[in-house]
Amino acid sequence: MGELVYLNGWVGPFEEALISVNDRGYNFGDGVYEVIRVYDGVMFALEDHLKRLEASAAAVEIDLPWDRRQLAGIARDVLCGSGIGEAMVYMQVTRGIAPRNHLFDPDIKPGLLVTVRNVPEMSPSIYSQGVKVITQQEFRWQMCNVKSISLQGAVLAKHRARKAGAAEAVFVLPDGTVTECGASNIFIVKNGVLMTHPADNRILAGITRQYVLELAESMGLPARVEPFKLTDLLAADEVFFTGSVVEIAPVVTVDGKQVSDGRPGPLTERIRREFISLSRKKADN
Amino acid sequence: MGELVYLNGWVGPFEEALISVNDRGYNFGDGVYEVIRVYDGVMFALEDHLKRLEASAAAVEIDLPWDRRQLAGIARDVLCGSGIGEAMVYMQVTRGIAPRNHLFDPDIKPGLLVTVRNVPEMSPSIYSQGVKVITQQEFRWQMCNVKSISLQGAVLAKHRARKAGAAEAVFVLPDGTVTECGASNIFIVKNGVLMTHPADNRILAGITRQYVLELAESMGLPARVEPFKLTDLLAADEVFFTGSVVEIAPVVTVDGKQVSDGRPGPLTERIRREFISLSRKKADN
Repeated sequence: MGELVYLNGWVGPFEEALISVNDRGYNFGDGVYEVIRVYDGVMFALEDHLKRLEASAAAVEIDLPWDRRQLAGIARDVLCGSGIGEAMVYMQVTRGIAPRNHLFDPDIKPGLLVTVRNVPEMSPSIYSQGVKVITQQEFRWQMCNVKSISLQGAVLAKHRARKAGAAEAVFVLPDGTVTECGASNIFIVKNGVLMTHPADNRILAGITRQYVLELAESMGLPARVEPFKLTDLLAADEVFFTGSVVEIAPVVTVDGKQVSDGRPGPLTERIRREFISLSRKKADN
Repeated sequence: MGELVYLNGWVGPFEEALISVNDRGYNFGDGVYEVIRVYDGVMFALEDHLKRLEASAAAVEIDLPWDRRQLAGIARDVLCGSGIGEAMVYMQVTRGIAPRNHLFDPDIKPGLLVTVRNVPEMSPSIYSQGVKVITQQEFRWQMCNVKSISLQGAVLAKHRARKAGAAEAVFVLPDGTVTECGASNIFIVKNGVLMTHPADNRILAGITRQYVLELAESMGLPARVEPFKLTDLLAADEVFFTGSVVEIAPVVTVDGKQVSDGRPGPLTERIRREFISLSRKKADN
């Protein structure tokens, strides 16, 4: 019992989980992935994650040889075997194994990695005191809707954020439009209205982002899913970002400039509490 | 003797070359690489490739624990062990092995993969009859100067080219500027003058590209290293693309439209002959 790896049918510990140097994940970042939060032994929003995995695979023309039921079954088996209650399930599909060549055989067989790991401890201060973010001119590719493992851009953005003492980097287009963060979606609240970027090729449509929008509706909070600018971000009453592991993190400074009074906002906290309640109830939908 | 792999000190055949599923190359495309052409047992422009590997690593903040001499020594040993005369040496440095997290430990130890493989056979018709290319709106990241293994964009571009019966995809910015191809640099010739995009963040400054520019100078051919447009590409007298393995490939159609008379151009062929002569002489500079 403990952290566990499934790799193309094999199951065992990380130390023994090895793949070919000819896996296209290793040579080309040629794969797609999902990270699923497990609450008390149950995967949250599993169906949503699997649907998105299928959409990512389709967008990069990887034909998944497993259906949703099979993927869910594999994930459940590995999770069960791990015995971990508060877990992250990572699923990665790479295009397959072949001698390195950009071009791939149409019949190449995709590979599947599933890992179950303990959720990293989230400092309570993230939520009680909020976190800092920096901005970055957008420099990633224009298929951010694909949850691709070609992530070096996101890695660098997060690294730059940490070097600046921040928790995230917010991408900004040349015209000032705020898209998303290195590994999360961003929301602002202004005069009681939520705003976040539409789910187009410029962002990865987060599952938590979607649940927040649905929660807002059920809570009677108006939300506008449309692009906003860096000036709006800086003038917001509240700012937060969302992700499957961090859930909902209040943002209190942007590039060192204080958001509102520099404390987590009340609506952010209300939404966060609703999300906590929902996620612990609605797991494994 | 035969195709051979070096992996962090281990040497053996591809079938036995395995890496951890926690290698950041496999989870994040978090690495850089080089492909070096070997002519008659000697690596061509090795020093240039190693310099560029260092520049790529620096750009993504990977601290190489090997100096140029050590990397060259490892590559030579593997090449020697393979016994292959006409080879491709592939060198890949990934950031290292760690439980998956965008953020990396500053002390993480990079991993080195070196492989030696036979050069794929290039059909003589590539050079005698030329090849087709298609265009693609640029959708990759804006650090194309880094020879990153986060290559899913290039993989998709090359795949789309093949689906269209073409050898390469040429990237075009929204303003019409032609940058480079999926895995090669592009040149046009107009009224006896060579043109190719400057070596900024929009292209990977190819070694063959650089040698072509130097050859042009020694041959007395005027060259302008400045951006040109898709309209210039379509109106060019000659078009060719360059890469370490393909060397210099004449382009005869762009999106189905014939370049000039639809045959490889005479300057392209002159430059190609000079390059062949140079590369077989100047190996291992």
